[in-house]
Amino acid sequence: MTEHPTPHEARALLQQPLEEMMLTQRAVRRVLPDPVDDAIVLRCIELALKAPTGSNGQNWEFVVVKDPAVKAQLGARYRQAWRLYGGVGKRLKRDDEDMLKVLRAVQWQVDHFEEIPVLVVACLSGSRVPYMPAPPIGPSSYYGSIYPSVQNLLLAARAVGLGASLITLPLWSSTSARHILGLPMSVLPACIVPLGWPRGRYGPTTRKPVGAVVHLDRFGNQPWRDADATEPS
Amino acid sequence: MTEHPTPHEARALLQQPLEEMMLTQRAVRRVLPDPVDDAIVLRCIELALKAPTGSNGQNWEFVVVKDPAVKAQLGARYRQAWRLYGGVGKRLKRDDEDMLKVLRAVQWQVDHFEEIPVLVVACLSGSRVPYMPAPPIGPSSYYGSIYPSVQNLLLAARAVGLGASLITLPLWSSTSARHILGLPMSVLPACIVPLGWPRGRYGPTTRKPVGAVVHLDRFGNQPWRDADATEPS
Repeated sequence: MTEHPTPHEARALLQQPLEEMMLTQRAVRRVLPDPVDDAIVLRCIELALKAPTGSNGQNWEFVVVKDPAVKAQLGARYRQAWRLYGGVGKRLKRDDEDMLKVLRAVQWQVDHFEEIPVLVVACLSGSRVPYMPAPPIGPSSYYGSIYPSVQNLLLAARAVGLGASLITLPLWSSTSARHILGLPMSVLPACIVPLGWPRGRYGPTTRKPVGAVVHLDRFGNQPWRDADATEPS
Repeated sequence: MTEHPTPHEARALLQQPLEEMMLTQRAVRRVLPDPVDDAIVLRCIELALKAPTGSNGQNWEFVVVKDPAVKAQLGARYRQAWRLYGGVGKRLKRDDEDMLKVLRAVQWQVDHFEEIPVLVVACLSGSRVPYMPAPPIGPSSYYGSIYPSVQNLLLAARAVGLGASLITLPLWSSTSARHILGLPMSVLPACIVPLGWPRGRYGPTTRKPVGAVVHLDRFGNQPWRDADATEPS
């Protein structure tokens, strides 16, 4: 059996360099059914809570799902949505080997959802950020109060060696998700981070070069498009 | 004059421990007008690009604003919104010294917006995540494709010693923000991260204890409410 880090070892792993953790973060969907110590999960969530929220509302709730019955209900919703969206994706992307790899990994996650040891459901409480304007910027402020914390959770998971990904499909019906998790109407489930010790090894991700997505002062003005602008001289 | 890190020194600062960077992240709104080297800003954005996006769409654009005329136009919008929301906040929170401190810092930012050396406007391109369902989970997937990257940007800024915060108010009118930044209709500005070298020193943030916002399997089941659950035994 594989050795997994103890909570004490996990604390040491969280001391790894920020830059390396960011550069090596990736979605790890194929995970082992081995249990994950509560103290490790809670420490990762505790670090998530250091992220900013709109008007410092800290209007978040995190449901840690370990009960197989609850997982099965969320899994059923995931499969329902995946039958539709996964099918469309596979047809549209049949010539894109990178995307087909992602789709196969998601298919694995869908098929093995009940085996994933821990699901963290990140929720927003309150229908909106206090003292913030209604649309159009309202939704951005609202979701901007949960996803920074989710990214901390993902980075912390990366550091301790936990496989993690960011998914929303099992929550496609908020009504259904609220019912499964016993959430009051004032709490909206935003996304799920499934956590488990990885199966196999994972390589790096690829991204468009920074100069291709950065504009100076006005959209379309891209002085760093062809430069290796971030190498210190 | 204060010494600021060179791009080379900034690279070394990014090697600081992940956990410490998360624990010491905070909004730093009072910043110096001193310029920030482009290479440092671009490296922070490059790290932001390693965050996940829905269906790996990488559907983001970042507008780096240094032109005083563009800053002034965004600043005018910020002041417009702040007159309304800041006034409400100050009235509602007049007995909450911590919140009044935040409101004073925002007031400083509003008053000195044109002096902030760099604004990074994070944008989503495309009206939604490819192959993802429409409402109700649609908006969460959509904003979930930009805020993890924004959190990377904020953590990277923290590591190199740049003051940063996450604001949305100057973008309250998408129409106006699009006009100012020359954004096509297909690109939505989600938030702004103002960057600059900090004035003064900043202390730690406080958060609710993790056990107060974590539930097990069902909302309301809070076995870690009173425990110091994350201390390794």
